[in-house]
Amino acid sequence: MMIQLALDRLSIEEAINVTRKVEHHIDWIEVGTSLIKEFGMDSVRKMKSAFPDKTIVADIKTFDNAIYEFELCFKNGADVATVMGAAPKVSIEACRDVAKRYNKQVMIDLLNTTDEQFAYLSEYEDLVLCAHISKDEQEHGGKTGWTLPLTSNENVMWAVAGGISPDSFSEIMKLNPHVVIIGSGITKAEDPEKAAKFFSENARVKGLNL
Amino acid sequence: MMIQLALDRLSIEEAINVTRKVEHHIDWIEVGTSLIKEFGMDSVRKMKSAFPDKTIVADIKTFDNAIYEFELCFKNGADVATVMGAAPKVSIEACRDVAKRYNKQVMIDLLNTTDEQFAYLSEYEDLVLCAHISKDEQEHGGKTGWTLPLTSNENVMWAVAGGISPDSFSEIMKLNPHVVIIGSGITKAEDPEKAAKFFSENARVKGLNL
Repeated sequence: MMIQLALDRLSIEEAINVTRKVEHHIDWIEVGTSLIKEFGMDSVRKMKSAFPDKTIVADIKTFDNAIYEFELCFKNGADVATVMGAAPKVSIEACRDVAKRYNKQVMIDLLNTTDEQFAYLSEYEDLVLCAHISKDEQEHGGKTGWTLPLTSNENVMWAVAGGISPDSFSEIMKLNPHVVIIGSGITKAEDPEKAAKFFSENARVKGLNL
Repeated sequence: MMIQLALDRLSIEEAINVTRKVEHHIDWIEVGTSLIKEFGMDSVRKMKSAFPDKTIVADIKTFDNAIYEFELCFKNGADVATVMGAAPKVSIEACRDVAKRYNKQVMIDLLNTTDEQFAYLSEYEDLVLCAHISKDEQEHGGKTGWTLPLTSNENVMWAVAGGISPDSFSEIMKLNPHVVIIGSGITKAEDPEKAAKFFSENARVKGLNL
């Protein structure tokens, strides 16, 4: 199980500083949507430059203009980029094509996808599906409780995201995803390093070591 | 009918230069999603600074983290910001709240919304609904033909977007939207000023003068 550190609502400098404190306990670094929309590709470029050996996830949440946006991400140092599962299928296919061409990875954010969309998304074997409780659903909708939608495709790679804390981590472990995405559970912790170590050690002990 | 100039796949400098050529023929200036994701809020700030008297639309395509993203847009000079209709309802409500607080406007991008989503989106009277054929649907999906979904709400304000050219403009005029969004039909025209003048004159003559 890999730990993806999600960096949101921070300056690029703050993002670099908090990542420095925890880098030995995490696997993937996510440049959050808020960093991309506030600072543009500078955010991706500077995180890759600060952590060249880490996998950088650009959470660009593409919904259209897929080739342009995915090329932007990969040219600026991202190893993984995200597209919304709720986007038109033609955009998702374009993301897969660009990732293949660059030998990079696609993550599909399943937030608010329909059953019909999930039916074709779950057929893909060359990408990561992310089950996601959104910030707004947590903060304003009172939504909690992570689940993975059912699929008969055993080769799906799963990520789980959304307000994961040390308290809720045991619930995540039961789902045993390939990637667990943690943001404020680390970045806003009193001691980010201690928090990251907790997640990392528990993930290594109980989860798949992918 | 208002003309919204959509600026995409350009540098900020190119966006300012092309807008200078056509500013007398357009009403709203859209800082496209690609500019925001490439250059961050710098793109919104610089466009507002270059055209302080124009309405600036930040096409941020919010899907989550609505308060943070909408405040970013309005604090940096946007007068209108966009949210995806396919996003969780709680996010759309948050966008409306922020816009109300800042005395600004919300535009909802209807791309790939479900009938269920459209049913509640079309009840709102304090925002603009945008019927949108996406770039990817045009370029890779062969989709054309604009329609406005049916609603009994006569107070809906409509925008129409997606590959609108001088050739297809008569089709748009029949729909008589409040806002017609034109990107490469102006920015990639051989003579952008001539193209903008064509759209503007035809909109004034045949459409509602809103």
